[in-house]
Amino acid sequence: MISGLIDAIVDKKAPIVVGLDPNLKFIPDHIKQAAIGEKGETLEAAADAVLTFNKSIIDATYDLIPAVKPQIAMYEQFGIPGLIAYKETVDYCHSKGLIVIGDVKRGDIGSTSESYAIAHLGEIKVGEKSIKPFDEDMATVNPYLGTDGVKPFVDVCNKYDKGIFVLVKTSNPSSGEFQDQTVDGGGPLYELVAVKVREWGEDSMDGAYSNVGAVVGATYPEQGEKIRKLMPNTYILVPGYGAQGGKASDIKVFFNKDGIGAIVNSSRGIIAAYTKEPYSGRFDAEHFADASREAVRDMISDINTALFDT
Amino acid sequence: MISGLIDAIVDKKAPIVVGLDPNLKFIPDHIKQAAIGEKGETLEAAADAVLTFNKSIIDATYDLIPAVKPQIAMYEQFGIPGLIAYKETVDYCHSKGLIVIGDVKRGDIGSTSESYAIAHLGEIKVGEKSIKPFDEDMATVNPYLGTDGVKPFVDVCNKYDKGIFVLVKTSNPSSGEFQDQTVDGGGPLYELVAVKVREWGEDSMDGAYSNVGAVVGATYPEQGEKIRKLMPNTYILVPGYGAQGGKASDIKVFFNKDGIGAIVNSSRGIIAAYTKEPYSGRFDAEHFADASREAVRDMISDINTALFDT
Repeated sequence: MISGLIDAIVDKKAPIVVGLDPNLKFIPDHIKQAAIGEKGETLEAAADAVLTFNKSIIDATYDLIPAVKPQIAMYEQFGIPGLIAYKETVDYCHSKGLIVIGDVKRGDIGSTSESYAIAHLGEIKVGEKSIKPFDEDMATVNPYLGTDGVKPFVDVCNKYDKGIFVLVKTSNPSSGEFQDQTVDGGGPLYELVAVKVREWGEDSMDGAYSNVGAVVGATYPEQGEKIRKLMPNTYILVPGYGAQGGKASDIKVFFNKDGIGAIVNSSRGIIAAYTKEPYSGRFDAEHFADASREAVRDMISDINTALFDT
Repeated sequence: MISGLIDAIVDKKAPIVVGLDPNLKFIPDHIKQAAIGEKGETLEAAADAVLTFNKSIIDATYDLIPAVKPQIAMYEQFGIPGLIAYKETVDYCHSKGLIVIGDVKRGDIGSTSESYAIAHLGEIKVGEKSIKPFDEDMATVNPYLGTDGVKPFVDVCNKYDKGIFVLVKTSNPSSGEFQDQTVDGGGPLYELVAVKVREWGEDSMDGAYSNVGAVVGATYPEQGEKIRKLMPNTYILVPGYGAQGGKASDIKVFFNKDGIGAIVNSSRGIIAAYTKEPYSGRFDAEHFADASREAVRDMISDINTALFDT
């Protein structure tokens, strides 16, 4: 799988992924009102608004980007209708040729982790028929439960040519509470997790990189630089650019010298661009998707400049 | 919330929770064949089989037990129809007066964690209307992202009188890879997590215990004993009894001296009892729910004997 993602990144000259995290407050009123007008104040209306919003963003950006990363929490909060909108978003992105990274941060043990892996990346057998439940291409995974929790995902990656990104050092302010603790080997916990991610990934190589990637926040470039060196064949998904404070100048260290090795996510910075400077002055709520397209172009330029012109 | 769970435990003299983890291989053939006969080899058929199975188990056990713990991965693997069956299971358990602990192990940061908390324990506003998306009473939470990830759950607990159990020391063989690492204070990581759980819980007390509980595996009684002392006002959800190897004699240390303070889960040991000794000789697949009732009675007796007669 990872070789497919790399091909798409190189092809589009865009090491970025658009986070589809459609909080209702980012969705323009005219979309919400139309949905509520049709379906009332219901979860179905919220889900309809989310899907309409997503489709406009995707239509306006799919030719520029290799991948999207829907954050399932933002759909799960609308219950079953929200999860139907999640699945329809996955399918719509596939119809536009995009790679879908399900930001699900699942993690459990043994057969339970296997069930999550099947849900998002694999196939379930009912009678004699195999069915793909959610059918993302890649998913994020939480490592707290150790190898028992991650190995079932790796096995499913191998069976169905899929990929995962395991949380190593997350972008949030309190990520250090546990992840930065100095552990038995003398380094921080996130380095130990990085070493395990590298080991897990050795069983799922796909070209120069492994299908088992890592999540490392743009907000921690110093740690990112160390982690990059620890795991040269591991692809890094980098959240925290833009709205969370990560800058393009901080991003270079997450990449290998060949200019690949990482993919940078922006969610609010793209999908809510019409509400923020410098786009809010030029685009109104009716033209939110045009603002997103402009923000994608600017992000690609910003990151490529940092990567290749400095 | 936790006071309600304690009342139910004391009332039924049963510090146990039944894990509703309906793997298709545990579901008797006659149920699966009827569902496939009606809906074909589809996710809908699998979900119907799951719901039929669950309802029989619930009908046969609800008067004996305070709570159930559906494991959402087992439903998510059947996609949208599976999650509909999850929600219908939650509602059916509520109609029987049971407390529902959603074993969702969610965890993210900031507004994303808040969305998960709303999805499972809170209400989402659509227009002027507030709607409960999944409406469990309690949920399990992963702590790897630190306070940013857990605090939104605590806030939702306080707002809607709900509870959580945060993973501290999980029951699986590899749980020590990260959780047992010696960290800065000199103790293992799980003890540091336990201390944070206690702190988070101080903001959500409900009688003698906090709405913020901990998950500690029955398979690690030595660690359980230490954790119990570290967090006297924290309720402990104890998985790993039975199928995973935890014995009743190991369980006592998870409780406080008053005989409360913990609730022990069994999943396969109850719902698949008809496939295992000593029940498989006495109950056939048609009477699987009767076997589950017997297994619940035996588990309650086993644990109460260990707690109060030794």
